[in-house]
Amino acid sequence: MVALAFLPELWTEILIPVCAVIGIVFSLFQWFIVSRVRVSADQGASSSSGGANNGKNGYGDYLIEEEEGVNDQSVVAKCAEIQTAISEGATSFLFTEYRYVGVFMVFFAGIIFVFLGSVEGFSTENKPCTYDETKTCKPALATAAFSTIAFILGAVTSVLSGFLGMKIATYANARTTLEARKGVGKAFIVAFRSGAVMGFLLAASGLLVLYITINVFKIYYGDDWEGLFEAITGYGLGGSSMALFGRVGGGIYTKAADVGADLVGKIERNIPEDDPRNPAVIADNVGDNVGDIAGMGSDLFGSYAEASCAALVVASISSFGINHDFTAMCYPLLISSMGILVCLITTLFATDFFEIKAVKEIEPALKNQLIISTVIMTVGIAIVSYVGLPSSFTIFNFGAQKVVKNWQLFLCVCVGLWAGLIIGFVTEYYTSNAYSPVQDVADSCRTGAATNVIFGLALGYKSVIIPIFAIAVSIFVSFSFAAMYGVAVAALGMLSTIATGLAIDAYGPISDNAGGIAEMAGMSHRIRERTDALDAAGNTTAAIGKGFAIGSAALVSLALFGAFVSRAGVHTVDVLTPKVIIGLLVGAMLPYWFSAMTMKSVGSAALKMVEEVRRQFNTIPGLMEGTAKPDYATCVKISTDASIKEMIPPGCLVMLTPLIVGFFFGVETLSGVLAGSLVSGVQIAISASNTGGAWDNAKKYIEAGVSEHAKSLGPKGSEPHKAAVIGDTIGDPLKDTSGPSLNILIKLMAVESLVFAPFFATHGGILFKYL
Amino acid sequence: MVALAFLPELWTEILIPVCAVIGIVFSLFQWFIVSRVRVSADQGASSSSGGANNGKNGYGDYLIEEEEGVNDQSVVAKCAEIQTAISEGATSFLFTEYRYVGVFMVFFAGIIFVFLGSVEGFSTENKPCTYDETKTCKPALATAAFSTIAFILGAVTSVLSGFLGMKIATYANARTTLEARKGVGKAFIVAFRSGAVMGFLLAASGLLVLYITINVFKIYYGDDWEGLFEAITGYGLGGSSMALFGRVGGGIYTKAADVGADLVGKIERNIPEDDPRNPAVIADNVGDNVGDIAGMGSDLFGSYAEASCAALVVASISSFGINHDFTAMCYPLLISSMGILVCLITTLFATDFFEIKAVKEIEPALKNQLIISTVIMTVGIAIVSYVGLPSSFTIFNFGAQKVVKNWQLFLCVCVGLWAGLIIGFVTEYYTSNAYSPVQDVADSCRTGAATNVIFGLALGYKSVIIPIFAIAVSIFVSFSFAAMYGVAVAALGMLSTIATGLAIDAYGPISDNAGGIAEMAGMSHRIRERTDALDAAGNTTAAIGKGFAIGSAALVSLALFGAFVSRAGVHTVDVLTPKVIIGLLVGAMLPYWFSAMTMKSVGSAALKMVEEVRRQFNTIPGLMEGTAKPDYATCVKISTDASIKEMIPPGCLVMLTPLIVGFFFGVETLSGVLAGSLVSGVQIAISASNTGGAWDNAKKYIEAGVSEHAKSLGPKGSEPHKAAVIGDTIGDPLKDTSGPSLNILIKLMAVESLVFAPFFATHGGILFKYL
Repeated sequence: MVALAFLPELWTEILIPVCAVIGIVFSLFQWFIVSRVRVSADQGASSSSGGANNGKNGYGDYLIEEEEGVNDQSVVAKCAEIQTAISEGATSFLFTEYRYVGVFMVFFAGIIFVFLGSVEGFSTENKPCTYDETKTCKPALATAAFSTIAFILGAVTSVLSGFLGMKIATYANARTTLEARKGVGKAFIVAFRSGAVMGFLLAASGLLVLYITINVFKIYYGDDWEGLFEAITGYGLGGSSMALFGRVGGGIYTKAADVGADLVGKIERNIPEDDPRNPAVIADNVGDNVGDIAGMGSDLFGSYAEASCAALVVASISSFGINHDFTAMCYPLLISSMGILVCLITTLFATDFFEIKAVKEIEPALKNQLIISTVIMTVGIAIVSYVGLPSSFTIFNFGAQKVVKNWQLFLCVCVGLWAGLIIGFVTEYYTSNAYSPVQDVADSCRTGAATNVIFGLALGYKSVIIPIFAIAVSIFVSFSFAAMYGVAVAALGMLSTIATGLAIDAYGPISDNAGGIAEMAGMSHRIRERTDALDAAGNTTAAIGKGFAIGSAALVSLALFGAFVSRAGVHTVDVLTPKVIIGLLVGAMLPYWFSAMTMKSVGSAALKMVEEVRRQFNTIPGLMEGTAKPDYATCVKISTDASIKEMIPPGCLVMLTPLIVGFFFGVETLSGVLAGSLVSGVQIAISASNTGGAWDNAKKYIEAGVSEHAKSLGPKGSEPHKAAVIGDTIGDPLKDTSGPSLNILIKLMAVESLVFAPFFATHGGILFKYL
Repeated sequence: MVALAFLPELWTEILIPVCAVIGIVFSLFQWFIVSRVRVSADQGASSSSGGANNGKNGYGDYLIEEEEGVNDQSVVAKCAEIQTAISEGATSFLFTEYRYVGVFMVFFAGIIFVFLGSVEGFSTENKPCTYDETKTCKPALATAAFSTIAFILGAVTSVLSGFLGMKIATYANARTTLEARKGVGKAFIVAFRSGAVMGFLLAASGLLVLYITINVFKIYYGDDWEGLFEAITGYGLGGSSMALFGRVGGGIYTKAADVGADLVGKIERNIPEDDPRNPAVIADNVGDNVGDIAGMGSDLFGSYAEASCAALVVASISSFGINHDFTAMCYPLLISSMGILVCLITTLFATDFFEIKAVKEIEPALKNQLIISTVIMTVGIAIVSYVGLPSSFTIFNFGAQKVVKNWQLFLCVCVGLWAGLIIGFVTEYYTSNAYSPVQDVADSCRTGAATNVIFGLALGYKSVIIPIFAIAVSIFVSFSFAAMYGVAVAALGMLSTIATGLAIDAYGPISDNAGGIAEMAGMSHRIRERTDALDAAGNTTAAIGKGFAIGSAALVSLALFGAFVSRAGVHTVDVLTPKVIIGLLVGAMLPYWFSAMTMKSVGSAALKMVEEVRRQFNTIPGLMEGTAKPDYATCVKISTDASIKEMIPPGCLVMLTPLIVGFFFGVETLSGVLAGSLVSGVQIAISASNTGGAWDNAKKYIEAGVSEHAKSLGPKGSEPHKAAVIGDTIGDPLKDTSGPSLNILIKLMAVESLVFAPFFATHGGILFKYL
């Protein structure tokens, strides 16, 4: 008598797509509300044809603050013009990027098919299953074909996630600016809703595509769930490899433009940030959308897809898969479905239940989103674990089956969820200028840029401690309870509130863009102050989002690593063997190699940008006086060309390393490389993004001058402020290029190894075979 | 019929101490030659009472260049005065440091005795041996007592190494300055000979004390070599724990003074480096001696002692120990003995066979030292391996015995030796301003400090790649041939030319000091140029020395780790167990935590120094004009107090982590922590020291202005130069405090775990036992 999950299979089949559709509908609804802010000169800003004016946020109550030229048509026209320029720049870049990456995808799809197909010499005959030899499974050729299809589906979904996110962000930026004329609360709501559009769209479509793919593949695979979910892992690989190029390419783009613009504009010419006279200003704003929005969207989609795949592939060889308990098998998807509903409720707290009236309420409102979603989700996980799992089941644990209770799995998911919250708060503590660490860094600017950098680096190193302990505890608990399945669902727990996480994360770059548009459209200082306040909160939430992304990446890649080891037929990864220890050492080096490449790329691209900006200032008469228009397009082109060119070497490093190591050195060394890059990469990633965030906010702290201490360091242009600007500039590539790309490095190498595991197990390690 | 080594035991007993004594005599001879440069006003500099004037370096040919006031008594008097001030400052600091560390040592010696004694409940009865149960071994209480004695001996030898090194360096600095008046070749020889004094004294006394200790302990232990060499490991722990405080304390001291002096002097007051008006200038020069000399001396002595102990403890449970083949057992010591002879010959190449006549010959001469010693040593190792080892023997390999041929062990030592050379050359490539990496960094100063820092960090990250591959290959070869014994002798191979390595390493700070003294004594620009040239070469050799130290630390700590695992009775360290993976993750975090502490310490201490220096400039009338003398003593005191206070937290982190992890979490987690800190720490250490070295030399490149490119960036005081100074200042704590201390972190945690292994195996892991 096999105990099955309480929830009948039919209900599972219905509930998952329903939740996904609810997410998509909610996302469209938020988009609809945002769209009611009109950005076209002929209709003007007074768009609310029938606003209810009910005192709640955002439903068209457009008559509260009739100031700052809310009906000034020329400002609206200018905003629309800038928005179009940014949107076109971003679209054009993404299309260029996708064209290059598309070629790579086709090529890599071919590799997957050939390599996996070669495992059984392209035989079309069924074979005994690996884990249950009494049954027959589909041939390796089928896995090769379906893995390739899943890979392409994952890649396309990832592209769409990034692209739609960018579209929404460039749709929302000018709207946020226009709403900022009416007050900080209004602007906040538009930015936040737009973030939510992206968050829900991504979470829901990721789930839906995965769900449909599983069901379609099932038609062919039938009862061979082992093969089915092996093939599904291609989905994670597709998602993550697109994310790599998105993060790296976008990261180089945005920071080349940003650093280049700052170096000449702020430091040499002494003009403010986002000044329309700066030729790199459009490229800078485009960068926010292609790097922080599209790149991050692809990244988190990748994490989500990989965590699901890791859980599914381990489950398929556990009792769920063996007993064909579809509901329990879909437990990871049920968690994500519940997550969409929970995030939906959470969003209402920000958009409808409460109202932002003052600047100081913004950061708490965003933080509350995290707390609320985590608390409700805990209940949600309990429900899903109770109805979606049998009370007791077995999980595959490197050659043995381990008995797990449903409450233990509940704890695994929870520990991941709450570790995410802890990481979020620690990140906030180290990167928000409300606390002493950033204030200390700001204070060290008194003695110049050198001490600022020393203190900033030390802060980043220190900020690693608690997140690592949080991750370690999550791993220990989830691993002890439910082996690699536990780790995978812990990662899913951390990612279960992804819609909310993405919403508050995307909110940052949208606000940043809104500020840029306000500056460029020549709006008043007051409006710029409001968008700056939104942006400062956005810096912290961006850092929190990066913290989540890294924490989940650590768990995901461990789960994928475990799945890879199981699938490759390795039983122990013993550090005390030469093959493993050298893998560990070299693996720990890879994040440094990768960071060296990306940072150098940003540096070189920024130098090119600096030269171009200087050239324009020197050769275009009247540019500094504001009488002539700069040539924005050339700067956009420099960023585009540089990022396309520079993303190839780091991309190759990540994509080729598992193939080379697995093929030449075999699965033991590859295991070492994966473990090494995981434990080393997560530290660099956290410290890089926190150091960068802290420098950015130390600068903002001096600029804002809200306390006595801050005033003693300022104002803008003082020596401490100049030192802070230098720190901020150094932090740019750390926090927006190399740091966040490292998540992808560790995840992608693991998922790639997992997909190619049968190939390595059969044909790998040729160097040792012939030596 | 057991095959023994070719060399009879009696010969071994004679050869080792003879080589050690030869080393000490040679060292004293070099010291005697240096002492012939007189630094006392009454006798003057024309000291050569009967110089042979034979055209070779240094034997008193004192009449070649009678210029620059060689007989100017007042300059000599001033140099003597400054030298005394530096020497007194350094001595006083070291005494203060040793007093604090002494208390710690006594306390820790107590811990060792109690913890190890408790393994068998302080029983005084003999017990069956662990690895050969047919024999009886001495009780754990004896091991506890002898380990404690060995610990104290190691600590005292380490202290002496550091202290004598400092004494020699402060003895040589003014002599180098005075010789610089006669030409760059003369100055080079004095500085190099003084470095050799330190190198040979340290290598020889380390060997001699270890040899005597083994022989004395043998009187008690008799045939129980297992117990004997277990107790000997305390020697390594003692050496390394002193080195920790020496490196960290000295590192904070030197960089607090350096950064503080630079921030006010160079940046704010625009006075040159080492200007006597700067109140922190004496502290800065004292710092070179306590940090770069005493700290490094202790560090390399620690590496040497640990590598020897790791090899001996593994050998004791292999066929050497089981067959009581004393010559083969002493193979590690024979290698070191041979090393002393090889380095002696190598030194003659620099001091007697060739002569330095121009600045451009300095760097090649130092590099040749490395190449010559490596080539000759390769032959030396072949001889030792042939006469000192049986043609075939077995080595303990985690529960099994592995058959090894003598030529295989020869290869193990060689691979370490040559990997050291490769690391040295790669380090040179990335830190010398003769090559493009540093020139690129210098070039990036055009766009300011931010790009300089970005490029510098990227350079450091990139410089990790080849050294890691070199270390990985060494590990793979030596591990595959002879398990952990192979790794240990590979480390010894890298350290076998330690006397030469230390000589060229110590040469750097001596030249740096000589330059400082020249500046302070008001000697001419020409003399300063000569000492600057010596110093620039010294920067690169210092970086090379750090490369060696890190590379050997990686091998040593792996060997110690292996010995720990063997001794703790662990057979596999499987990454895919929760206890190990969390250890790995947390271990990889420790170098970040440690670096955060040390960097912050330098930053805070530097801020205090800045305040004091500013205060003196503002309150002492006539200081800037040079009519009043600054209060050097207060700055010395600030550095002393800060470094004593600040060295405690990082010291505790390193010393307590193995105890806490082992006691509460057990040996598996501790294994993970050791492996994690090893693979992560080595990367940070290499990148930190190379980044710092590159920034320093990028600045020097701009200052020297020898090429068209360099001239376009300069001169001193230009915007690019200012940016370069900022980079240099940031690099100071990276390259001289946190980076080199990380070597000790990874080694010390491993050797401490090894010493306490029986305790952890018996009483450890209480948290999991009761959960």
